[in-house]
Amino acid sequence: MNRRMVFYTVGRISLAAAVLLLLPALVSLIYLESCGWSFLITIAIALALSGALTRLSRPSSDVIYAREGFAIVALGWLLTALLGALPFFLSGEIPSFIDAFFESVSGLTTTGASILTDVESLSHGILFWRSFTHWIGGMGVLIFIMAIIPNLADRSIHIVRAEMPGPVVGKLVPRVKDTAKILYIIYIAMTLVQIAFLLFGGMSLFESIVHAFATAGTGGFGIKADSIAGYSPYLQWVITVFMLIFGVNFNLYYLILVRRARSALRSGELWCYIGIVAVSTVVILFNILPQFGSAGEALRHSAFQVASIISTTGYSTADFNLWPGLSKGILFLLLFIGGCAGSTAGGLKMSRAIMLVKMVGREFRRMLHPRSVSTVRFEGKSVDTSTLGSVSTYFVIYMICIFAVFLLISPEPFGFETNFSAAVTCFNNVGPGFAMVGPTGSFAAYSGFSKLVLSMAMLLGRLEIFPLILALSPRSWIKK
Amino acid sequence: MNRRMVFYTVGRISLAAAVLLLLPALVSLIYLESCGWSFLITIAIALALSGALTRLSRPSSDVIYAREGFAIVALGWLLTALLGALPFFLSGEIPSFIDAFFESVSGLTTTGASILTDVESLSHGILFWRSFTHWIGGMGVLIFIMAIIPNLADRSIHIVRAEMPGPVVGKLVPRVKDTAKILYIIYIAMTLVQIAFLLFGGMSLFESIVHAFATAGTGGFGIKADSIAGYSPYLQWVITVFMLIFGVNFNLYYLILVRRARSALRSGELWCYIGIVAVSTVVILFNILPQFGSAGEALRHSAFQVASIISTTGYSTADFNLWPGLSKGILFLLLFIGGCAGSTAGGLKMSRAIMLVKMVGREFRRMLHPRSVSTVRFEGKSVDTSTLGSVSTYFVIYMICIFAVFLLISPEPFGFETNFSAAVTCFNNVGPGFAMVGPTGSFAAYSGFSKLVLSMAMLLGRLEIFPLILALSPRSWIKK
Repeated sequence: MNRRMVFYTVGRISLAAAVLLLLPALVSLIYLESCGWSFLITIAIALALSGALTRLSRPSSDVIYAREGFAIVALGWLLTALLGALPFFLSGEIPSFIDAFFESVSGLTTTGASILTDVESLSHGILFWRSFTHWIGGMGVLIFIMAIIPNLADRSIHIVRAEMPGPVVGKLVPRVKDTAKILYIIYIAMTLVQIAFLLFGGMSLFESIVHAFATAGTGGFGIKADSIAGYSPYLQWVITVFMLIFGVNFNLYYLILVRRARSALRSGELWCYIGIVAVSTVVILFNILPQFGSAGEALRHSAFQVASIISTTGYSTADFNLWPGLSKGILFLLLFIGGCAGSTAGGLKMSRAIMLVKMVGREFRRMLHPRSVSTVRFEGKSVDTSTLGSVSTYFVIYMICIFAVFLLISPEPFGFETNFSAAVTCFNNVGPGFAMVGPTGSFAAYSGFSKLVLSMAMLLGRLEIFPLILALSPRSWIKK
Repeated sequence: MNRRMVFYTVGRISLAAAVLLLLPALVSLIYLESCGWSFLITIAIALALSGALTRLSRPSSDVIYAREGFAIVALGWLLTALLGALPFFLSGEIPSFIDAFFESVSGLTTTGASILTDVESLSHGILFWRSFTHWIGGMGVLIFIMAIIPNLADRSIHIVRAEMPGPVVGKLVPRVKDTAKILYIIYIAMTLVQIAFLLFGGMSLFESIVHAFATAGTGGFGIKADSIAGYSPYLQWVITVFMLIFGVNFNLYYLILVRRARSALRSGELWCYIGIVAVSTVVILFNILPQFGSAGEALRHSAFQVASIISTTGYSTADFNLWPGLSKGILFLLLFIGGCAGSTAGGLKMSRAIMLVKMVGREFRRMLHPRSVSTVRFEGKSVDTSTLGSVSTYFVIYMICIFAVFLLISPEPFGFETNFSAAVTCFNNVGPGFAMVGPTGSFAAYSGFSKLVLSMAMLLGRLEIFPLILALSPRSWIKK
């Protein structure tokens, strides 16, 4: 393990966090809020930490292999989450540090699960920071570093691989740094477009920005107690569409940019995503029709909730806890699937789900014709056995993690539906679950231990399990 | 597809069913119950069916490949389940045929989920038949045929493979027929030993037999409304131990018989099974201690419920629905694991669970050292890639099936905990779930459609998915 390189890079991450914290500090200044001090103190801490780490561990070699990549990503995320929790805590707006950490992790991992019972009482600076953590975490803290900091070697593909969700890591262009820049440009441009659409619908600038941040990162922190329910149908539709847009693989937007829209439209993952959204929306529409006045209203709520859950955003326009069993059942299953690989969405990822289903199909063929050779094809290419093995093994550890999280929080007296859906929704970075942790509820009643477990679940889910566990295992740190 | 051979063998299965139905008919005669007629009518129908099928489709070739094996097993089980439902229906003791079918499937698949709300009102003949279906289904209808009917070719390994649970099919001795006989001898002997132990504890002969049948098959149909709760602690402990014994791979008993006990005790699967039972029992013991008078009583209830769930029997001595969340959480996870491969238990199977966990470990090693070669070892041998692929793919389709069953019954108005645990418990052939389908509840309130879905879930779970789906797919029936 190249420890110096790991700590040096973590130091750069601390610097980046300090830079990012300037924005909410500025917001506090504009609104003349006292919470501004909490941002300035956090910035000072981050700068000091960065200075210490980069000066003390200037690396002799810039080699980064897989294990260094995992360690950088895991430590970088933990550090950013801890720094991110400080403003909540120091401002006194979230008096418990565990609660502040939960909220910060939930923000950065773009989960959107909250321990707050009265979000409307928060200051603008803190509200802005909550949503901004979604935006930062959506594309990835490390990708951001790579886009802005010059002297990282091109070995950094190992960092991208450790941070970017999805079974296959694509480089759009040969250099990782350039790929990171392109992704960020697309991300920023689409966020700006959404802000424009929200402003057009009469939302204030502040509200437009925080909602666009949370949508772009597929996070789900809002600023109202009823999430998006109080906004106009136009605004709800805008958010529906953008939640879906940010759940699509960003590679497709790059293809469209370089005028290869036709190959973008050939993506099987895209069509599966659209298909699942369409079918779920229609089934739920008919299922909830009796509860709403008109088909238009039922369609709006159905489409919003489906888009929100499958993109793992977690906003809501209606309390789907009160919907019929079938609708809740569909939403429960959508909690698992998540958006496309290479998007800001969490969950198992559409591409993995497709490969898993195709592997099952191949197993049926193999049962009937034991000697035949049958391959699994995805996006026009046949997938090699080792990738398929990784995908199915990922599914195994994914289910084990969800069950383990559920078991650890099962002593909580909130019942099976609450605890199981809490484990599923946190691990998949969605946000709301059912019963007590439903769209109108919160995670406030959980014990400190359970909040820490759920925070780890969110981090495990966002980083797709391996980096965190490998970085925390002592064996990774032994020198070769 | 060698259709003649398929239908011919299904005809023989019908004959075997007729033979097996003589036993409950005899019981009805002893107790002079009118339900005896329903058995006689069913026997007549089974004989007529058998005559027609074996005469009309005498096969020209005795070739049985994988697809014939799947078709025979799937059709054989469906037919046996239908025939098994007739006595319940014809006697009028279960007035709805769908209910009777559910009860018959639940019996044969050794699930033990019941639609009955007043089991104590049933006649002796019907009670005997319910438990006897557990005993028949535990070891397998087809294995029985192979043990008693002389002229099946040794190609019948494909039938065993399709019917016997577990990832690896072992032949104890070179000829399949001899293996089947040995397994049945062990099965009968252990059942008789359990009957002796129950008689010794003061249980009547009739009760001893039906409870031993249900324990041996790891089924769980009882004859009392409170399952086993009303029996003495001695009897509860006897049943605890025998539930565990019947959840162990029968190959180990064969090894002990041929004086190779040492290699039986080297089984990693056995020790994992014992370890999980021990840890679960101890944790639940401390968790439920406040609810019970003494540690001894808490231990008895804890051990009984753990043994009952992990062996997928489903008997109960206490309403674990009222236990604290942690205990319910542990029992919920045990619903999935199930007993050892090659036992009468259902579930995912211990051996698969072990291999899945080992595959995850290998994936972690591969992440750190991408070029290293690392194998998965099980029971002292390294497992080949294709078996590992099958095991992980099985887990994928297993989870898909559970989610699909849950989705299909989710319109039922009984809430998430009831519906989800119903899907899990039926698919894993355990029996009780939580909330409405808990140990003191029943499946009576479900709609006919949901009862059929859950019946299919039980069959899919018992036959490990592939035979049923392949046999129902038209492509399997096309001639090459």
